[in-house]
Amino acid sequence: MVGFGVVGQSFAKLLLSRSADLYSEHGIKPRIVACVDNKGSAVAPAGLDLQRLLEAKKTKSTVGAYDKGKKEFDPVQVIENVEAEVVLECSPTDLSTGEPGTTHIISAMRNGKHVISVNKGPLALAFPSLIELANYNGVMLRFSGTVGGGTPILEFAKRCLKGDRIASFRGILNGTTNYILSKMEEGMDYESALADSKQKGYAEANPSLDIDGFDAAAKLVIMANWVMGMKVTMKDVKRTGISGVRSANVKKAAEGGNAIKLIATCDSKRLDVAPTEVAKKDPICVNGTLNAVTFSSEHSGQQTIIGRGAGGMETASAILRDLIEIRDTIFER
Amino acid sequence: MVGFGVVGQSFAKLLLSRSADLYSEHGIKPRIVACVDNKGSAVAPAGLDLQRLLEAKKTKSTVGAYDKGKKEFDPVQVIENVEAEVVLECSPTDLSTGEPGTTHIISAMRNGKHVISVNKGPLALAFPSLIELANYNGVMLRFSGTVGGGTPILEFAKRCLKGDRIASFRGILNGTTNYILSKMEEGMDYESALADSKQKGYAEANPSLDIDGFDAAAKLVIMANWVMGMKVTMKDVKRTGISGVRSANVKKAAEGGNAIKLIATCDSKRLDVAPTEVAKKDPICVNGTLNAVTFSSEHSGQQTIIGRGAGGMETASAILRDLIEIRDTIFER
Repeated sequence: MVGFGVVGQSFAKLLLSRSADLYSEHGIKPRIVACVDNKGSAVAPAGLDLQRLLEAKKTKSTVGAYDKGKKEFDPVQVIENVEAEVVLECSPTDLSTGEPGTTHIISAMRNGKHVISVNKGPLALAFPSLIELANYNGVMLRFSGTVGGGTPILEFAKRCLKGDRIASFRGILNGTTNYILSKMEEGMDYESALADSKQKGYAEANPSLDIDGFDAAAKLVIMANWVMGMKVTMKDVKRTGISGVRSANVKKAAEGGNAIKLIATCDSKRLDVAPTEVAKKDPICVNGTLNAVTFSSEHSGQQTIIGRGAGGMETASAILRDLIEIRDTIFER
Repeated sequence: MVGFGVVGQSFAKLLLSRSADLYSEHGIKPRIVACVDNKGSAVAPAGLDLQRLLEAKKTKSTVGAYDKGKKEFDPVQVIENVEAEVVLECSPTDLSTGEPGTTHIISAMRNGKHVISVNKGPLALAFPSLIELANYNGVMLRFSGTVGGGTPILEFAKRCLKGDRIASFRGILNGTTNYILSKMEEGMDYESALADSKQKGYAEANPSLDIDGFDAAAKLVIMANWVMGMKVTMKDVKRTGISGVRSANVKKAAEGGNAIKLIATCDSKRLDVAPTEVAKKDPICVNGTLNAVTFSSEHSGQQTIIGRGAGGMETASAILRDLIEIRDTIFER
């Protein structure tokens, strides 16, 4: 496990609380044999004691405090030298460089290790080449947690609509901007709504990632590649953020029974993120921090999936789904 | 294929229009080797000409007109004597007796044939014993089209939330009653809304199946068994229809920001269908003929899936999903 922030810690807690039924229901007993954060590492081939690992992080702010052994290993050293079947890439998302996640993922795959990434950066910037590298090395690359948090948007499109053809999709892929726009609909102006979302902990100190549409665009890229088979990256997305949305626009939309939402759209002609008027009766028109995506399929019509798009435990549950899928696929081979 | 009404005919059309890509994408080339309706049968071990089959049904109202051969075979004779891998049970739903579907399904499974049923009756009345019989005979019983039409509600719960535990769910499972309640919200009284839904072709001449909640209860039973592992049938559902809902109730709910919906609920304590006040902001609160279900999972939170709950082509696409899944499972063995 590379990176041990909110999601990584939630995953450790999830394994602790679920170990009995993971074994009885799915026949798996996952061991975390190494964990690296930005200050140190903990390695134990027989499996780390997750309770102690969480304790070390909590009290000393690094997993390096787990034991008195060597802790100077950097992530790439650990990825290359520790025997493991899967590398969990949980380091922070950087949508400009994709690093350090991209280096971690490439190292892991070159070493014949499967990868589960909850880091959007590498996928948004280099999805087509990462998938190619995975195929070349005969490993699986999974990333359920990058879109929709715990809401299985990617699986829904890929598995549940099997046998049908998705012609297009559109959705609200960023909870923070949706919260801000929902507050503006309730009467707040943009500045107050943004301040409120910071206070609630939804928007970062530097909120550009959310409000300028980068986060939504990254998820759109991942979906366009995985669901539609496109070979696109961030630079192919036409992107407009919400900072230009005024209270007057929101009011005018409301008069027509509509709301302004930051909508990501993908069809044969468009790949864009932009504030868009949506009918309030449209199932996609959800409020607060919810995410929603509507898929238009050729034969089974339109289907919408709605859920929270973030959250540590929710995203950890997506990692677990990926892990079970990797295990099931290995087993079938 | 037993039964050749709207869904059966849509499935034949779907096969005609998709034959090339079904082979290229999924490696399957389904042949319909026999088709029986209430007036006759058509049998062709090399595969029926589906265009001609549709033509026979259209011009002579029975598939018995397909050719001049014998056509006196009844469904059970065809199921038992024609060599086939899968039996599609598409005869009309009867929620009192479950017949003739139950007899067809049992005959098919006893003969070692997999079954895809879009008929809710047999499943609503005898789900636990039918699944047991399928296991005993080593065949698969699939029924995606019974809940949600083309909206993959069952697959979503079963596949996408793998590794998590669904603690409860609730939803709008009947489009006709939702249409009526939506119209009442717009100001119509109950009688006019019901008349309108009949005129639009949503409600049957005898609308009891919908308005008394039988259809929603049948779907609830199927979901409770398949998703939650309960062993229940229709008689375990506490059921209240919408005929007691008055315009005054709808108005009063609207004043509190709510709407009255026919909600099916399943949790550890409840298995019921009843008119219920739902917040308009709740994603489940959809209008018109839409269906919506919210699943509450232990770790990944609440997720809602929304789509049309009926339609010939939509339901046919669900049959195709089942067929591909059966084929994939056979292939893996």
